[in-house]
Amino acid sequence: MIIIVFGVSGCGKTTVGQLLAEQLNLPFHDADLYHPPVNVAKMSNGEPLTDQDRIPWLKVLASNLREWDNNGGAVLACSALKEDYRQTLAEATEINWVYLAGSYDTIRKRLVTRMKHFMNPKLLDSQFEILEEPDYGIRIEIDSSPHLIVQEIMDKLHQNKVQFGIIGMGVMGRNLALNLAEKGETVCVYNRHVVGSEEGIAQRLADENPDLPFKAFDDLKSFVHTLEAPRVILLMIPAGNAVDMQIEQLKPLLSKGDVIVDGGNSFFKDSERRASELKADGFHFLPMGISGGEEGARKGPSLMPGGTAEGYNLLKTYLEKIAAVDKKGKACITHVGTGGAGHFVKMVHNSIEYAEMQLLAEIYSIMRHGWGLEPEKIAAILEDWAGYGLNSYLLEITVSILKKKENEEFLLDKILDQAEQKGTGGWSVSVALENGVPYGPLAEAVMARNISARKTSREDLAKKIAFKPDPAFVFDEKPEILRNAFAMVSLINHAVGFDLIKTVSDKQDWGINLSETARIWTNGCIIRSALMEDLVDVFKDHDNLLAAKQSLELFGKSQRDLAFVVNQAMESGHAVPVMSSALNYYLSAITSESAANLIQAQRDFFGAHTYQRKDKERGNYFHTDWLSND
Amino acid sequence: MIIIVFGVSGCGKTTVGQLLAEQLNLPFHDADLYHPPVNVAKMSNGEPLTDQDRIPWLKVLASNLREWDNNGGAVLACSALKEDYRQTLAEATEINWVYLAGSYDTIRKRLVTRMKHFMNPKLLDSQFEILEEPDYGIRIEIDSSPHLIVQEIMDKLHQNKVQFGIIGMGVMGRNLALNLAEKGETVCVYNRHVVGSEEGIAQRLADENPDLPFKAFDDLKSFVHTLEAPRVILLMIPAGNAVDMQIEQLKPLLSKGDVIVDGGNSFFKDSERRASELKADGFHFLPMGISGGEEGARKGPSLMPGGTAEGYNLLKTYLEKIAAVDKKGKACITHVGTGGAGHFVKMVHNSIEYAEMQLLAEIYSIMRHGWGLEPEKIAAILEDWAGYGLNSYLLEITVSILKKKENEEFLLDKILDQAEQKGTGGWSVSVALENGVPYGPLAEAVMARNISARKTSREDLAKKIAFKPDPAFVFDEKPEILRNAFAMVSLINHAVGFDLIKTVSDKQDWGINLSETARIWTNGCIIRSALMEDLVDVFKDHDNLLAAKQSLELFGKSQRDLAFVVNQAMESGHAVPVMSSALNYYLSAITSESAANLIQAQRDFFGAHTYQRKDKERGNYFHTDWLSND
Repeated sequence: MIIIVFGVSGCGKTTVGQLLAEQLNLPFHDADLYHPPVNVAKMSNGEPLTDQDRIPWLKVLASNLREWDNNGGAVLACSALKEDYRQTLAEATEINWVYLAGSYDTIRKRLVTRMKHFMNPKLLDSQFEILEEPDYGIRIEIDSSPHLIVQEIMDKLHQNKVQFGIIGMGVMGRNLALNLAEKGETVCVYNRHVVGSEEGIAQRLADENPDLPFKAFDDLKSFVHTLEAPRVILLMIPAGNAVDMQIEQLKPLLSKGDVIVDGGNSFFKDSERRASELKADGFHFLPMGISGGEEGARKGPSLMPGGTAEGYNLLKTYLEKIAAVDKKGKACITHVGTGGAGHFVKMVHNSIEYAEMQLLAEIYSIMRHGWGLEPEKIAAILEDWAGYGLNSYLLEITVSILKKKENEEFLLDKILDQAEQKGTGGWSVSVALENGVPYGPLAEAVMARNISARKTSREDLAKKIAFKPDPAFVFDEKPEILRNAFAMVSLINHAVGFDLIKTVSDKQDWGINLSETARIWTNGCIIRSALMEDLVDVFKDHDNLLAAKQSLELFGKSQRDLAFVVNQAMESGHAVPVMSSALNYYLSAITSESAANLIQAQRDFFGAHTYQRKDKERGNYFHTDWLSND
Repeated sequence: MIIIVFGVSGCGKTTVGQLLAEQLNLPFHDADLYHPPVNVAKMSNGEPLTDQDRIPWLKVLASNLREWDNNGGAVLACSALKEDYRQTLAEATEINWVYLAGSYDTIRKRLVTRMKHFMNPKLLDSQFEILEEPDYGIRIEIDSSPHLIVQEIMDKLHQNKVQFGIIGMGVMGRNLALNLAEKGETVCVYNRHVVGSEEGIAQRLADENPDLPFKAFDDLKSFVHTLEAPRVILLMIPAGNAVDMQIEQLKPLLSKGDVIVDGGNSFFKDSERRASELKADGFHFLPMGISGGEEGARKGPSLMPGGTAEGYNLLKTYLEKIAAVDKKGKACITHVGTGGAGHFVKMVHNSIEYAEMQLLAEIYSIMRHGWGLEPEKIAAILEDWAGYGLNSYLLEITVSILKKKENEEFLLDKILDQAEQKGTGGWSVSVALENGVPYGPLAEAVMARNISARKTSREDLAKKIAFKPDPAFVFDEKPEILRNAFAMVSLINHAVGFDLIKTVSDKQDWGINLSETARIWTNGCIIRSALMEDLVDVFKDHDNLLAAKQSLELFGKSQRDLAFVVNQAMESGHAVPVMSSALNYYLSAITSESAANLIQAQRDFFGAHTYQRKDKERGNYFHTDWLSND
């Protein structure tokens, strides 16, 4: 860190500079001592220096500054009155400018009482003539004591410290940068330079937002060197190999104790690996889930950082400023847990999101294709449901979508029914299976997208066969029953997702707090909802959502309605994979006696896998020769 | 390979040895030429050699034999009449002994007509006196021509060649070894020596089966050296790290071109990695699925080898002998495809197995808990179904299980309803998701086991809540309808599994033949069935089982029945996750217009993910500002 304390002769830059250097534990230098003898002589004779005189002096100083910076920094007292001088000084080093400002009268009074200085007080006039006050750096009025002045400088230096950088100016990175800069925080933004496709992207963000405190780079080294250690660098780049490559590029430039945050949708096992590799190198690695899409990133996302607690503490002052805020005014961010916990909960968040979206699609399908309602009517029904504690962001946007027209026609009808995806939904299912967690409804949501993607095959089969309902079948238009079914499935979707969080957190010893997880999901993220707000309290008392009092009440009221809705859909040939899987999940979960005894018998029959018995203590295994006669 | 052709003087060992060496492309040596001059003089004088005379000669020969063996082998003609002599010769090298046997009279006639030989025919008496005929090696009567004798030796040499070894004498390894040895094939069997837990396991197998051609080892080096290159070594050890460790131990002992077969349930991606690593080392690696359980391994399993075609050719002569046989008499083994294809199809096999087992559990549950039938009655119904083309191994064992009594009570009722598993079912789901393959019914089967495993939680919840059917509800006891539903779900389970095989095979370029896969699953394996026999032909004409004529007929006849069964189960509170997922899968697959347009609209709304349109050419993507008013 190089600090130049500057101003006209008599402003106190030597005294203040020395005190400041002491405080910062840095060496102090006086620029005047670097004047060549010819300049000193000129000044003692009362002759003003010309710019020509100053050039060699400034160049020598600039080169010294670089060396001091490399050795840990320094404080320099220097007049540096003109912008040109300052630019020469700053040629080789990043400089913290501290301008000591005083009026002509104040300075003159000081100077006439200062006899030992070699400068002739008459020269003050020429100094004020050439003085160009800067519009950057720190400006301090010199009317208080040197100690108070130094205190003020220290405060402002700290405020001016740039510690936070973002790599990757895609939609999400850009919006997060804007969000943080709007909160007054200086943000270093970096985007790689790729000829022909990514050129000057970071600079464009800075140019388009001249009032915001951006420092833009397309050179990684400058970007990192501008940040002060401990640096906090947020990666907003595509998940996968790109993250490893970026980390490799960063590592040689960083200082021990710096924090790398991965804000992408990385697979949490990759994040665990990276965290342990970077820990060995002395860095903090924080895998962080971010939800809220484009708008959330700009206006307030839900943030799910994992990694070390120490790294989180360095990060949170920044992120608390940009996160969404819950109903009690608390930021929607928490240290989710150690290691890959942040990316893990984001993955489960997305998995619940898949299920809630598919649930709405099934509800829509029943009303549209089963009951034959127009989109506007469906929108009205859904809006009505919001009043029954069923409000959610996804419900709201579904209403907006249903209402959206294009040339007097519903836009929804023109959209191809072929859903796409990016992977997190499927990952969750794999992780659930690895951990023996039943995950039916959330798995079916992913698979519904897979089957929808087979549009051509569906069209071909539809030409060959159709489901023909019984001629006597009537699809009952009963929105209240459908509403109850919707509420119950939505609750089950959440129970399934949180169950996975609990199971894996226990196994990995991440210490994830379910209530706190629900809290940071009450705003900013895609699955924010009235239900999520309830869950904040529910999870204070229960780990298993199914067993909560509120849930049992809902089940008691809605279970037969859900069965009715699923049956009606099926009898009329409409697929409702998430609703029926949720119902099956529920029925399986509340059944003390299942048919799994047959499966154990089969396994023992063909594979001698043995079985446990109801009439013997559990943990004892038995094998039977099933074809013998005894 | 060292071959010693031996017998009394005049048996023809030089002539036969030379011809044999020519056939085998090996150098020929005559032991008599290695006699020290003092022995030659003695013999020419008609004096018989003493054992003392022979010792230095035999020692020199033994050391030469080792050298010849190291250089690729040789054929040696040598009298070697006494067991002591032969043991001296065999001290340093493994020897293939070929004894040319003739009566005293036959030999005498030959000798008196052979004048140029330096041996005095009178010595023949002494030779027959000391001759000790061996009870090992190859014995040939010399009454035919030298060429025919050589032909006979070649045949027997080939039969005697031990090339096939099995590592791991667990249930499966042991049964496969017994199976192959019973076919007359010599099998080297190896099991590691672990003090206190695994001691003399391979030897015990050999000791317990003295009539079978086993060579037993607990020393890996001896095991490998006994096998002749190109060796075929079948690993029957637990999947995972153990396989890598075993391969590392084997590698330094093997010759290039040897074949390692992994017969465990390894994950196919691990197998792909191992195949490519071992290819680089010059070995063949064949990942092979094996199905049929304990009994199949002993009496005829279904075998699914992948890996290189060259490796398969070395393997198949052995494995065709032990595999099950299909209806046309062909072995249930085929080269499934390259790389990890073998383990991959085994994984899918198991996944279908999970679904078929769960389907039977659901059918059982409906009849037992829904209709209230006794197990014996259910067994009778299922036996009846077999007559409707629904026979299968799993159906058969289910019937046996249902009938099984213990102290006049049904054993099934005493088995704990908590299903276990080993992983392959879950892996398939993950692979399906990775490849965008809808996999609902097969996924639900795995998850049904997961939820069954939560016995305590189920019991707790059952105390708090129960599903109470509508008092007016009647569970119709209609076995024909249930049978149709069963047939339809079973077909869908297979369609889903084979769809995964097709998709991944295409992506990996494995070239898996679906019809051939169905064929090797018609016998020996757990999912053999009448349906599987039909599929052999169906897959000759169709890749997509759903679109086959037979399937469409079945769907037309059964779809409403399946919906009826699922609805009845649900209305009465019985979970049928595989049946209802299969119905949803079916309905989704035959629906040309799904509700996935809503999902695409939602994704575009919150994430600007864009969408395609029905009224625009596919491949064009659009984005809407959903909240704008235009």
